[in-house]
Amino acid sequence: MSSELFEKGLKIRTEVLGEAYVKKALAGMDDFNKPLQELVTEYCWGAVWGREGLQRSERSMLNLAMISILNRPHELKAHIRGALANGVTREQICEVFLQVAIYAGVPEAVDSFRIARETFAELGGA
Amino acid sequence: MSSELFEKGLKIRTEVLGEAYVKKALAGMDDFNKPLQELVTEYCWGAVWGREGLQRSERSMLNLAMISILNRPHELKAHIRGALANGVTREQICEVFLQVAIYAGVPEAVDSFRIARETFAELGGA
Amino acid sequence: MSSELFEKGLKIRTEVLGEAYVKKALAGMDDFNKPLQELVTEYCWGAVWGREGLQRSERSMLNLAMISILNRPHELKAHIRGALANGVTREQICEVFLQVAIYAGVPEAVDSFRIARETFAELGGA
Amino acid sequence: MSSELFEKGLKIRTEVLGEAYVKKALAGMDDFNKPLQELVTEYCWGAVWGREGLQRSERSMLNLAMISILNRPHELKAHIRGALANGVTREQICEVFLQVAIYAGVPEAVDSFRIARETFAELGGA
Amino acid sequence: MSSELFEKGLKIRTEVLGEAYVKKALAGMDDFNKPLQELVTEYCWGAVWGREGLQRSERSMLNLAMISILNRPHELKAHIRGALANGVTREQICEVFLQVAIYAGVPEAVDSFRIARETFAELGGA
Amino acid sequence: MSSELFEKGLKIRTEVLGEAYVKKALAGMDDFNKPLQELVTEYCWGAVWGREGLQRSERSMLNLAMISILNRPHELKAHIRGALANGVTREQICEVFLQVAIYAGVPEAVDSFRIARETFAELGGA
Repeated sequence: MSSELFEKGLKIRTEVLGEAYVKKALAGMDDFNKPLQELVTEYCWGAVWGREGLQRSERSMLNLAMISILNRPHELKAHIRGALANGVTREQICEVFLQVAIYAGVPEAVDSFRIARETFAELGGA
Repeated sequence: MSSELFEKGLKIRTEVLGEAYVKKALAGMDDFNKPLQELVTEYCWGAVWGREGLQRSERSMLNLAMISILNRPHELKAHIRGALANGVTREQICEVFLQVAIYAGVPEAVDSFRIARETFAELGGA
Repeated sequence: MSSELFEKGLKIRTEVLGEAYVKKALAGMDDFNKPLQELVTEYCWGAVWGREGLQRSERSMLNLAMISILNRPHELKAHIRGALANGVTREQICEVFLQVAIYAGVPEAVDSFRIARETFAELGGA
Repeated sequence: MSSELFEKGLKIRTEVLGEAYVKKALAGMDDFNKPLQELVTEYCWGAVWGREGLQRSERSMLNLAMISILNRPHELKAHIRGALANGVTREQICEVFLQVAIYAGVPEAVDSFRIARETFAELGGA
Repeated sequence: MSSELFEKGLKIRTEVLGEAYVKKALAGMDDFNKPLQELVTEYCWGAVWGREGLQRSERSMLNLAMISILNRPHELKAHIRGALANGVTREQICEVFLQVAIYAGVPEAVDSFRIARETFAELGGA
Repeated sequence: MSSELFEKGLKIRTEVLGEAYVKKALAGMDDFNKPLQELVTEYCWGAVWGREGLQRSERSMLNLAMISILNRPHELKAHIRGALANGVTREQICEVFLQVAIYAGVPEAVDSFRIARETFAELGGA
């Protein structure tokens, strides 16, 4: 692993998913999942999220659509929080999931709206 | 939105998924998910379920197969109840999910049978 | 393998997919794909299609929806022909794929309508 | 169907996918696929693409990611052209598909890059 | 059903998934899911797991990759236990899911690692 | 990018997919797809295929199952060739795809067997 790219990825991952999330991920690291944590931090967050060419809010919106279709609720929750942190508004999240309804089907969208509402409730506020 | 198609969809949605389900969906409506509720009611329930050309029991069986493959347990439960309301028998539900086993794989079917049994248990009776 | 179930499956497979299709499949059988041909004929066509509990036209409609979502054009073509052989009308095929549009997304339906039209053109007539 | 929403959808669909594409789609319309063409034009293009809340270039980028994962090459080609028409650059398309590589896997991205290059070659120019 | 193949399948299924698992599956059998239990035991465990040509540990590794992509956590847990019973090590399970990360995407792998860790915790020991 | 990991990945990729394949991939590289080629070579082939812990033939078998389910014929062909280069036999490929039939469905397996036979025909010999 390239430690430079790992450090860059760790910084971005923390900015997007939050310090609490990343601390928990690192604290839960053991011999079994260490190779995954390293790969994800370096490859996903360093090598791709670290690129120029798209704004972070755009990357977040892409992720919401993709993870909704890929049907991974844990990850979707984390990335809804990340999207808000990256400046995506609740109105834009609504639009993304409406587009999911059309292109990937109504059940995908119904689930994603429910997960978004749960996430908003956890975050409190408006 | 066309209010005529919305009304038609609301009527069919209520007949299939039940008054309790639809009341809960509408009661849980806020600014965030209102566009989805409208789109689903009008487009899914009005424009497609409202068509002639297939019996409701046939539409229900198609939905069981599709939602099983799409892997959405919340929606699957609602549509198992809907299928029973549309006159699909438990024996026919068994047949649909056996066909899912062959065409979409054993894990899909094992999950769908388990969810069906949970739904039957919630409904009680034979 | 149970030869009785195999024979039953072969008979149903021929009735649904047509003699030409099945002859070609068997003629193309070699050491490599023989285990698949046997498994499919016996389990898919004998053990599941051979069951009571659903009409063949219903099984065909389920297959059109499932194979459309599973995104397998070769198989979809064969099962569109099979559906027609089982008495499913073109109007019903239209209805099945409209329901796919809603539950699994517009691109799935657009592809399936195109493949259906190609199949109809190959078959000629009305 | 609401003719107002249909007309709005037809206008947007033409602006995004091009006059040639839409003319061909309408010319190929017959009794079988007419309900799909109407549904897609009205709901997909009128009711969702016609909404405020996201820029068209953002909707296009979401579509590229979604249709890449949904694995529909015909539709992907049409929406790569649409993305360019909506002001998405080739550099941004590259970024979208790199993000697909990470979140949905390398084979998805390899296919999508190949399809994009074919589309660029058809369009000529730089 | 061929009772010979069923018996063979039952034996292998018990060896791989454990006596407790299979006893529970059979005890939970009723008129509704009996056809599935028979089909799975005979067809999945007898006709395919019962074949020569791959080692059981290889079949287990294939299943971990496939069920991870198919996104079925209940089944994945059962097959992680099965893999350990078939001599697959935790290190090899890590490798399988890293390969899932690359070919099917990071969210698939993150979920699978989490489920594996939960399973290991339930099993206790190192 | 780490040039050491890239070089390692390039070496493994060439050993598995063949010199002709890799030369063609690199010759077809332009500004648009260069970031993908680098990412795939370094992360997929260097960071994951370059790991100890599984034999190459095991990694190949996992890929055949995964890419079959992911439904990517171009990539499947390349990896069938790669599997043969890694010492996987045609009999083992048959077993992998039979297991796909059970866990991911018959249409997936039918397509994969057909693609394997086409690949064998292109390679000639027994």
